[in-house]
Amino acid sequence: MSTDNTTDASTETESKCGASEAGEAKSPSESASGADTETDTPSKCGASSASSSPETTPDTSDDTTSTCGAASSDSSSSSSSGSSCGASSSSDSSDEEEVGSTVDDFDAEPGQLIAVGLGPGQPEGMTARARSALMDAEHIVGYTTYVDLLPDEVTDAAEDIYNTPMCGEVSRTEEAIDRALAGNDVAIIGSGDPNVYALAGLALEIIESKGATATMLDFDVVPGVPAAQSCAARVGAPLVNDTVSISLSDHLTDMPTIESRLHAAAKEGFTITIYNPWSRKRRENYEKCCEILLEHRDPETPVGVVHAAGREDEQVEIVELGDLPELGETDLVDMTTTLLVGNEDTYVWDDRMVTPRGYETKYDY
Amino acid sequence: MSTDNTTDASTETESKCGASEAGEAKSPSESASGADTETDTPSKCGASSASSSPETTPDTSDDTTSTCGAASSDSSSSSSSGSSCGASSSSDSSDEEEVGSTVDDFDAEPGQLIAVGLGPGQPEGMTARARSALMDAEHIVGYTTYVDLLPDEVTDAAEDIYNTPMCGEVSRTEEAIDRALAGNDVAIIGSGDPNVYALAGLALEIIESKGATATMLDFDVVPGVPAAQSCAARVGAPLVNDTVSISLSDHLTDMPTIESRLHAAAKEGFTITIYNPWSRKRRENYEKCCEILLEHRDPETPVGVVHAAGREDEQVEIVELGDLPELGETDLVDMTTTLLVGNEDTYVWDDRMVTPRGYETKYDY
Repeated sequence: MSTDNTTDASTETESKCGASEAGEAKSPSESASGADTETDTPSKCGASSASSSPETTPDTSDDTTSTCGAASSDSSSSSSSGSSCGASSSSDSSDEEEVGSTVDDFDAEPGQLIAVGLGPGQPEGMTARARSALMDAEHIVGYTTYVDLLPDEVTDAAEDIYNTPMCGEVSRTEEAIDRALAGNDVAIIGSGDPNVYALAGLALEIIESKGATATMLDFDVVPGVPAAQSCAARVGAPLVNDTVSISLSDHLTDMPTIESRLHAAAKEGFTITIYNPWSRKRRENYEKCCEILLEHRDPETPVGVVHAAGREDEQVEIVELGDLPELGETDLVDMTTTLLVGNEDTYVWDDRMVTPRGYETKYDY
Repeated sequence: MSTDNTTDASTETESKCGASEAGEAKSPSESASGADTETDTPSKCGASSASSSPETTPDTSDDTTSTCGAASSDSSSSSSSGSSCGASSSSDSSDEEEVGSTVDDFDAEPGQLIAVGLGPGQPEGMTARARSALMDAEHIVGYTTYVDLLPDEVTDAAEDIYNTPMCGEVSRTEEAIDRALAGNDVAIIGSGDPNVYALAGLALEIIESKGATATMLDFDVVPGVPAAQSCAARVGAPLVNDTVSISLSDHLTDMPTIESRLHAAAKEGFTITIYNPWSRKRRENYEKCCEILLEHRDPETPVGVVHAAGREDEQVEIVELGDLPELGETDLVDMTTTLLVGNEDTYVWDDRMVTPRGYETKYDY
């Protein structure tokens, strides 16, 4: 597989409530954290993680051409990522002839690959099933920030942990697959849920591209609490009816499609969760989104704004739709923020957002 | 508050993956289970739970005019629901003068009220935070089926458990609020997430109607894994892009609105999770839904069908959109089923649904 580290490798992220990604960080306090997503900074992993994440360990920040692999040594509990499967380095090496291992490159009996959703990111947000899947895994592969959030009990139990800072979701996912094909039981982790702007689909696509099968790897998905729900819980009950999730990242979905979806969702009275609302390179997407929402909804429509949930710099505010445009340039709204847009019936009461279910039309209270 | 037990009290449910509700059961094997939702059977609780749920304990099935309260004694671990707060019986009693307690009816220092999402329903699907919230609660209020799914450790730790079979989400929620106003720390439980077709909003509405405040009760929401994500995990990666949740129950949302939302979602390439797809009284909603989806999407579009997830009668199938209409009259599709409708790009590979993120346009693998 060849990934072009010099392209904008930004992807949607399902990691807003809890840990979040650093690529868009506006304040230093954000740059230590990260979600399973890519930076917009067009540069090699090493360089970009160094530039946007001062806390990144020297071995990557010193290495402007570093591969993701090099970063794995910054996990206290991980062994060297000179990994246990011969072909694994292909996932992130710039050494072309090693790139693109297929199932034929492995002679071992394949292990299992499980995509595990951690939920909000902190251990208490994890399901018991997720925890036991991680305890059973021989190798854990994930974004450095999530690996760092894992309970010691879990990281201590793992034979090897492969983590990467700003590097590609794609290369990390291939690393996980290669390790499983090499005979290891592997868990690949991300915050939120593996089905929400995350890697469950990517894993299946790459497994197929290698000539392997999901069955061969006994591929399974362990669901987690998505950012929409963990952020909604922080502002009350904003999403109780029919609802939509839309990401403003136009890396994998073009902007006309995103705009068209925003129009449709706003017109039809859905509550709307906006992922990846703002980035330096996507100011216009945010502005356009506000414009579209205001075309269809009252400026006083409540909007829950959850920034860097579960972290020191967490901010939770309930604002009015009309205030959103000006918030784009503040630290409140960045790639670590999730927006929860109410519908026509949503109101604010006692500092909570309430989207009525409509019981009042059926019951007298 | 007065609830009319003789009206159709059906509501959406967020309980498809894991336990589910019995009101719509087509096969006897389903009727032991239930989600936090109401039966369509226009009859009193006792009668309806008896008729649709043979396993219901005699004390309710014998009592065709029974109130929800009477059912609480069928929880092995619950004490009598002759509950510890004076006004609580008002929530489900037919004794009109007791109905509609307000904050003034309580002189105690209020306890805390937490809405806890259990996720798929089984203990392993619960987050650590949900479990500890339940361990800390003095009273647990919920639908019988979920209470029965709680680990003994949790039910043993509770001072009192109030559960109701087919009775109203509304009366049960008021019961929880009254108990908190009476000074107890109360957890009200439901499967899935409290923000997804569930009771977080209802709780806030009723708290307000009682002249109390969320702050007074230190009201909090503990999120859980919604059915969309837990069911999606079972069929692979059907929902990885922008997605919509729509319920076909027209109890609280009128059918023209539901139809309009289905058109918009199908037109805009969202993946779509359909909750409450079929019920005896809502055959036409299901038929209409299939018709609308087929208007916009290819008959070969993959659809994940997850029936009674996590239970003995669980069935998981991946079908084609064109097959949906005829499935409406089979046991595969009822109120315990969640439908996961792929978008234009979704394909089936190795028995998994894959909705590509679009990486293939950015990466070469």
